[in-house]
Amino acid sequence: MASPIASAALKARIRRPSMLKKLCKPQDLMHHFPNGSYIGWSGFTGVGYPKKMPTYMADHVEQNGLQGKLKYSLFVGASSGAETENRWASLDMIDRRTPHQVGKAISKGINEGKIHFFDKHLSMFPVDLVYGYYTKDRPHNKLDVVVVEATDIKEDGSIVPGASVGATPELIQMADKIIIEVNTSLPSFEGLHDITMTDLPPLRKPYLVMGVEDRIGRTSIPIDPEKVVGILESDYQDATAPNAEADESANKIAGHLIEFFEHEVAHGRLPNSLLPLQSGIGNVANAIIGGLDNSNFRNLKVWTEVIQDTFLDLFDSGRLDFATATSIRFSPDGFRRFYDNWEAYYGKLLLRSQQVSNSPEIIRRLGVIAMNTPVEVDIYAHANSTCVMGSRMLNGLGGSADFLRSSKYSIMHTPSTRPSKTDPHGVSCIVPMCTHIDQTEHDLDVIVTEQGLADVRGLSPRERARVIIKKCAHPVYQPILTHYFEKAESDCLRKGWGHEPHLLFNSFDLHKALVEHGSMQKVGQW
Amino acid sequence: MASPIASAALKARIRRPSMLKKLCKPQDLMHHFPNGSYIGWSGFTGVGYPKKMPTYMADHVEQNGLQGKLKYSLFVGASSGAETENRWASLDMIDRRTPHQVGKAISKGINEGKIHFFDKHLSMFPVDLVYGYYTKDRPHNKLDVVVVEATDIKEDGSIVPGASVGATPELIQMADKIIIEVNTSLPSFEGLHDITMTDLPPLRKPYLVMGVEDRIGRTSIPIDPEKVVGILESDYQDATAPNAEADESANKIAGHLIEFFEHEVAHGRLPNSLLPLQSGIGNVANAIIGGLDNSNFRNLKVWTEVIQDTFLDLFDSGRLDFATATSIRFSPDGFRRFYDNWEAYYGKLLLRSQQVSNSPEIIRRLGVIAMNTPVEVDIYAHANSTCVMGSRMLNGLGGSADFLRSSKYSIMHTPSTRPSKTDPHGVSCIVPMCTHIDQTEHDLDVIVTEQGLADVRGLSPRERARVIIKKCAHPVYQPILTHYFEKAESDCLRKGWGHEPHLLFNSFDLHKALVEHGSMQKVGQW
Repeated sequence: MASPIASAALKARIRRPSMLKKLCKPQDLMHHFPNGSYIGWSGFTGVGYPKKMPTYMADHVEQNGLQGKLKYSLFVGASSGAETENRWASLDMIDRRTPHQVGKAISKGINEGKIHFFDKHLSMFPVDLVYGYYTKDRPHNKLDVVVVEATDIKEDGSIVPGASVGATPELIQMADKIIIEVNTSLPSFEGLHDITMTDLPPLRKPYLVMGVEDRIGRTSIPIDPEKVVGILESDYQDATAPNAEADESANKIAGHLIEFFEHEVAHGRLPNSLLPLQSGIGNVANAIIGGLDNSNFRNLKVWTEVIQDTFLDLFDSGRLDFATATSIRFSPDGFRRFYDNWEAYYGKLLLRSQQVSNSPEIIRRLGVIAMNTPVEVDIYAHANSTCVMGSRMLNGLGGSADFLRSSKYSIMHTPSTRPSKTDPHGVSCIVPMCTHIDQTEHDLDVIVTEQGLADVRGLSPRERARVIIKKCAHPVYQPILTHYFEKAESDCLRKGWGHEPHLLFNSFDLHKALVEHGSMQKVGQW
Repeated sequence: MASPIASAALKARIRRPSMLKKLCKPQDLMHHFPNGSYIGWSGFTGVGYPKKMPTYMADHVEQNGLQGKLKYSLFVGASSGAETENRWASLDMIDRRTPHQVGKAISKGINEGKIHFFDKHLSMFPVDLVYGYYTKDRPHNKLDVVVVEATDIKEDGSIVPGASVGATPELIQMADKIIIEVNTSLPSFEGLHDITMTDLPPLRKPYLVMGVEDRIGRTSIPIDPEKVVGILESDYQDATAPNAEADESANKIAGHLIEFFEHEVAHGRLPNSLLPLQSGIGNVANAIIGGLDNSNFRNLKVWTEVIQDTFLDLFDSGRLDFATATSIRFSPDGFRRFYDNWEAYYGKLLLRSQQVSNSPEIIRRLGVIAMNTPVEVDIYAHANSTCVMGSRMLNGLGGSADFLRSSKYSIMHTPSTRPSKTDPHGVSCIVPMCTHIDQTEHDLDVIVTEQGLADVRGLSPRERARVIIKKCAHPVYQPILTHYFEKAESDCLRKGWGHEPHLLFNSFDLHKALVEHGSMQKVGQW
């Protein structure tokens, strides 16, 4: 095989000569991927993932009719790009996947039983990986091949990641062989990262982060150069989508939350600059950040998992002082804006590994304000983040529980209803009992819908139920939920088991009405 | 009122003269406790709680027929003594209680709706308290009176707690008035504690504990002397009970676990001295510690919530190097043994606040091995730690979730069945779906019963169900659970929502059979 000739752009990015000698093409590396391999990829929330090798492998399977004959166990910090993991799923190339995924084909594969998937706290996945928990039945206790995207390879062989860090440090620690895709279509991200590796107990040390801007690591990920079996040049962009627009319901939710923050400031429980914010992905999250941009809060800081376009607005308006996360997932327009104004943002951002961005240790210390969207919340403040009807996996747990358990303010925001096929309010997001529980009643402080905000801090379960139904449920579901609760309360108190009253054998009757009659409104009486 | 005269014993314990002047009798302090007061007590797992003032108050209510007329909100780190909080409950003196309790009368009051109770992670309760979450509707945002037991008052006014630290530092931080019971029937515990107070974000600092023996605080709890409204001399002992004996089932569980630890050592995932152990209360916990005492493991260390008698055996056999917790709850015999051999144990023990003993930060850093008992576990590895039949509160969450989420090894141990009134195996502890969920599928690594051990690390839900049913379920329930799972799997996969298959509307049928027919074995077919 003839080695490809390095472009000038590539030579500028690869500053260790021995690495330049490993330059090759995807087809030269295919033999490292026998059927059944355990593979790791860089990437998080659809940015910073390898593109060239996975795309080549998908083409190879497609062109040679190898569907179902080359299947892999795939480990990525969170979701990869649609054109890689989702295409792999549609080509039946994934046997096992963890800890998070996004895409119709991969979700279908999981829910039809073709793909073994499990979700795990995103802060914990890299640790359990290094513990050897996921490779314990492999002879060498390693991942066979790890493919990572980088914008630079430094003199010492270490790599500078792109728009995400995710689990790359730990994937590399656990790799038997490493392939690096150097992406010359991105600017060099050098200096934007704060990289720490994982020591194991009893040698693990504290994360000495006391403010969102604190640096505790280095700017690149160390690599054992002897493990690198190939370098690829890549010029594929991260394939992100435009952001969801905020709607009226999302703006109402944001309004309730801003009012709540003002209340907390007025009562001395929050400083004027609030505390570091964590916010998820989606239109409600965007509405909240938009709401902050129109508020009186200044000198805001962000400690979160993923940074989106709206944070650029908050930087530009001078309200946001510093933001740190494990990925920046901008829209195509957002990335252009970011690259065009690199100097303005560069000193106000740090990307860290997901073990650090989602670290319960740091989240609790900093007193983060965490805001996430569930599938459903129940009247006692448990939340379902993952499995519709208790069984159908959406994307996975993500970092929701990392943040919601450890934050100072643990907030779930959701529209009070969603449409079913036949009823614009066919699904109540406030239910008697969640069909799957990812966040427990011991974890949540505030539930908010477009109807209002329920502050459940310090309340007993029966008090919680009353305030959640009153403040958060949609008017068409308030009488239904009240009836359930009051019947459960009277039955259970009489039996002397009324701490958290349920009509246990009818607790999913709303879900049953949805399945059988197309709307939770059509539930019968108890 | 005439001040009582201080005994020589008391004078030796109170080394600040201004405090001796505050010596008084319980009846002098009764006016500090108007109906509706918010009260804090020291204490944790039934040791180190105040005895004199609560007992006097109970006598006062009983003798004057004031049941239901003097009711309080009661905040204690965990459970207090039966003769205090349980007697208060039986005299209808408790309006609100958090975060944990033990006693028939208090449990009855909670489940009949007389007492507003909520349980919270024991590491988080003191933080939320200092955030002002539990006093946010009080005019001064404080606890009205906090009553604490101490063995000494030092020159600077700070106090040395007794056999527990619990939430005392934070209760004192939040107190408007403080009453100190100096217990002269106990030896001075000075030097046995490692005390840290709680700073709030953005000023909170890391806990610089990197080994179980690391000291990060001082030996006593600072107090604002102007807040002290009275000092009482007490000579009541902590009223602990003898420990539960291990039975055959508990010994089998312990055997499976020891074998698992040996396996992990053999595969390089644990050092020969294991990692710091956390173990709960009860006969299985005792069997495990007993099992370790007959094992080949040496140089063991303990990072746990409460230290029990069996740890003394482990010290005496030379296997245990160091233990730290937030309380030492020995039996009466155990306390005698501890006091008689004070010099032998003193340098090998540290008691810290429950915020530190149960700190997710430290538990994760140290790689603790956590072992707890649930009410029930389901086939997908969720666990119920608190509410029988989803509704009836036992004692509360305790520290189970603090440890199980953050530990390196998260282990739930339970007998595979418990007896119902009519069937020695009427209740299966392995169920299709837990009726209440405190630990999620994302938190547990190992489930163990007397039948065997299920290692679910890295498994998808359907893989988990198969191994839990096979290894852990009792033989009489294996076919029932297998039938449920296989029917759910086939139904859900067909519908394309088979990630975690459930027959949602029949998921509590075993519980229904128990209620209606006296045994889960009497469930029908699906």
